[in-house]
Amino acid sequence: MAEKQPKQNDKKVTPRSEDFAAWYNDICLRAELADYSPVRGCIVFRPDGFAIWEALRDELDRRIKKTGARNAYFPLFIPQSFLQKEAQHVEGFAPELAVVTHGGGKELEEPLIVRPTSETIINHMFAQWIRSHRDLPMMVNQWCNVVRWEMRTRLFLRTSEFLWQEGHTAHATAEEAQTETLGMLEVYRQFVEEFLAIPLIVGRKSAAERFPGAVETYSIEGLMGDGRALQCGTSHFLGQNFAKPFEIRYLDDQNQMQFVWQTSWGVSTRLLGAIVMAHGDDQGLRLPPTVASTQAVVVPIFRKPEEGATVLAAARAALEALTQAGIRARIDEREGMTPGFKFNDWEMRGVPVRIEIGPRDVASGEAVLARRDKSGPESKTKASLATIADTVGALLGEIQKNLYAQAKAAMVANTRRFDDYAAFRQHMEGEGGGGFAHIYWCGNPACETRIREETKATCRAIPLTNDGVAGKCLVCGESATERAYFAKSY
Amino acid sequence: MAEKQPKQNDKKVTPRSEDFAAWYNDICLRAELADYSPVRGCIVFRPDGFAIWEALRDELDRRIKKTGARNAYFPLFIPQSFLQKEAQHVEGFAPELAVVTHGGGKELEEPLIVRPTSETIINHMFAQWIRSHRDLPMMVNQWCNVVRWEMRTRLFLRTSEFLWQEGHTAHATAEEAQTETLGMLEVYRQFVEEFLAIPLIVGRKSAAERFPGAVETYSIEGLMGDGRALQCGTSHFLGQNFAKPFEIRYLDDQNQMQFVWQTSWGVSTRLLGAIVMAHGDDQGLRLPPTVASTQAVVVPIFRKPEEGATVLAAARAALEALTQAGIRARIDEREGMTPGFKFNDWEMRGVPVRIEIGPRDVASGEAVLARRDKSGPESKTKASLATIADTVGALLGEIQKNLYAQAKAAMVANTRRFDDYAAFRQHMEGEGGGGFAHIYWCGNPACETRIREETKATCRAIPLTNDGVAGKCLVCGESATERAYFAKSY
Repeated sequence: MAEKQPKQNDKKVTPRSEDFAAWYNDICLRAELADYSPVRGCIVFRPDGFAIWEALRDELDRRIKKTGARNAYFPLFIPQSFLQKEAQHVEGFAPELAVVTHGGGKELEEPLIVRPTSETIINHMFAQWIRSHRDLPMMVNQWCNVVRWEMRTRLFLRTSEFLWQEGHTAHATAEEAQTETLGMLEVYRQFVEEFLAIPLIVGRKSAAERFPGAVETYSIEGLMGDGRALQCGTSHFLGQNFAKPFEIRYLDDQNQMQFVWQTSWGVSTRLLGAIVMAHGDDQGLRLPPTVASTQAVVVPIFRKPEEGATVLAAARAALEALTQAGIRARIDEREGMTPGFKFNDWEMRGVPVRIEIGPRDVASGEAVLARRDKSGPESKTKASLATIADTVGALLGEIQKNLYAQAKAAMVANTRRFDDYAAFRQHMEGEGGGGFAHIYWCGNPACETRIREETKATCRAIPLTNDGVAGKCLVCGESATERAYFAKSY
Repeated sequence: MAEKQPKQNDKKVTPRSEDFAAWYNDICLRAELADYSPVRGCIVFRPDGFAIWEALRDELDRRIKKTGARNAYFPLFIPQSFLQKEAQHVEGFAPELAVVTHGGGKELEEPLIVRPTSETIINHMFAQWIRSHRDLPMMVNQWCNVVRWEMRTRLFLRTSEFLWQEGHTAHATAEEAQTETLGMLEVYRQFVEEFLAIPLIVGRKSAAERFPGAVETYSIEGLMGDGRALQCGTSHFLGQNFAKPFEIRYLDDQNQMQFVWQTSWGVSTRLLGAIVMAHGDDQGLRLPPTVASTQAVVVPIFRKPEEGATVLAAARAALEALTQAGIRARIDEREGMTPGFKFNDWEMRGVPVRIEIGPRDVASGEAVLARRDKSGPESKTKASLATIADTVGALLGEIQKNLYAQAKAAMVANTRRFDDYAAFRQHMEGEGGGGFAHIYWCGNPACETRIREETKATCRAIPLTNDGVAGKCLVCGESATERAYFAKSY
């Protein structure tokens, strides 16, 4: 029997402007990035989603190794007693733990925690490996799964199990550790802005938003399409908070025993959600060419069978030229589907460039290029088949820049200074996320709490450098030395 | 104060011939591949060990993707009820499970199993994704951690948590699934023989050694330095054993609902142990150049400070030439250590080529190359500094081949045919592992059991092709159509 045309759009994607959260879920599921799993809070990374993770992981891994850190792997399980060694650390993570109580058919003497983060077990090992100043700095990174029990799941953004990298370093001096903390923050900033095309706010966290056990936490924060902030990565200066309970000491060059100074830093699969929310539109994903496993798709178009041979030959030649030039390209030769169906399909999957080749194009030695970062007539141009690889290569670079520019323009347009609390509050209570509010804050936690309770906005980051102009706290009116970024967040 | 010479060999490595198991542990710890952890049965992969895993993982990943499988990621946790859907599967894994009973501070309604393997959860998802014959074949692979509770740990070889890849495929026909099963076995064979330089026996498992839930299990088996076999990878034909309980069905091109046919296949971090045991010697590791993160180390040698400048300049130029040629090279400029200390250190770490450059070498435009795969005078040659990269590049290729040849010769020398049970039994009861015994076996499990009970040897593999000459079962004397490989194993 004849094949039926596969169904598409049997359920319409919720428009982004109508319900951002529903739109986000629709895109993640329809583009086959992820799926819900039968295990509460855990998701499945489908091949198209995991391929994006692999691309960003490989690139970030190269950048991390360039700083001198090396990859290692530490146990999934952490003895309960280890977590309790640092008071704030256990307090922060206790409500989110998954606990193994039975192993090999027997009840365990000491329950094991499925790692929510690995400071404790890694520092236990550091204490055995670090003896002398010659062993420092010690810099390790691991790519692994971690578990933090969540009751409400959002694909990629909040899941009980997620994948991440966590770097852990030990240094001889506080200064060196502080330099490392900020150095990794800058590695993350460059990586997310350059590779994921997501513009960022960079800064330190308020005490309320600090990692449990850290002296200072620094963060990179992106602004999503609905005006909410998303924490995209963090870097922590741990001081000697773990070194002391875990007794990580070294003999310095004066033959004195000293505690080390430490950092930890990480980014997670949450970045996949950031890519969807920062760039996607009502037609689906829009992937930065850097992370797209298919950067260009060739769609041969013909109706009459006798046109097929020449069109397919030209399309395959174009594919070959693109592949030779190092462009990740594929051809869509699926039968029984209309070109329109295929266009929609690749747009949903976020492929940056589509190359349409029909009989007339072959005759004129040209193809139609459709770029995913624009829409309507301005998304289409003609290109010579003879130089297709060069043209597409240049276009991919342009798309990468343009996606960043579009997201940057959206962030700038959605960042406001407020010097009046009532106006700020009214704005934040309105529809949508509200964007970034760049406001004077005295640093008093009470003012921060009032903002959170009355507007749901939290302090996302206090910039590393401010303009030096003092002002008055938006809440209490006391003098404030710097402006901080507040926003509602994921 | 002056730096002290770091200690080395404060505890001598146990000779391989004296106590193979102790030698193995000494090497893994001293070469800093792994360390014991405070969590029972779990080990730490240190950077030098993990770098080998990364090299082999990246290469195998490329080869797996070439077959058409794509990477994905499924949850760490599996609902207890899922494991119970396939009777043999749950029976096989029940004694080894780690169970999460509490999450987020509450007791769970249904306990969650930390995955020992992922057939059940993946097949649950396959049942939702597979609708039509157009969705087939479905081929996914994941790199992840798994947990099988072990009471006795051996670094890399037997640990409660280990890292692996597990491929899972679904096909329209039994033939296609069988072809996939054997196709992946061949991918594994080529990978281990070519990339890890470990020669193998290939074949199917006896019923007693089958994966719980498989119709057939196929295996690649290596022979370690002590004459024991190590299972290096397995590929399973699952038939419809999982398709039926998980109801994975598709509409075929005749519009009929059909159950799929399936495979699964995997290799694990156990391969790191195989590399150590197949190639190592009393001086330490001997790494195949393919997996060595340092393929060549340049050691500048001088006593008088005035010689330092010229020697270091020549050594750095050699490093630059090697790096330019794509060879993973480093230079050892550590101060306060004798050349002998450095030589021992790099030998322990298994670096394939050492390049010694002293004042006389610079004067004559030469360097001394020491290859790790040979010992004594024949390990050393002179090479012109002008063409050092070409010479080392060729030597690395030669070392890769020679390590394989050495291991192959050892396997051949340690593989014997027995046609008399008493002689076989006496041999297996002797000192050492005993190697492979290539013997006629009628296929009766009772004969297999008797061999295991009396000699500790098990059926490692029944070759895919035999010479066609029939014989008599070594145990019962009944007619047997093929010879199988039996050995004591890890």
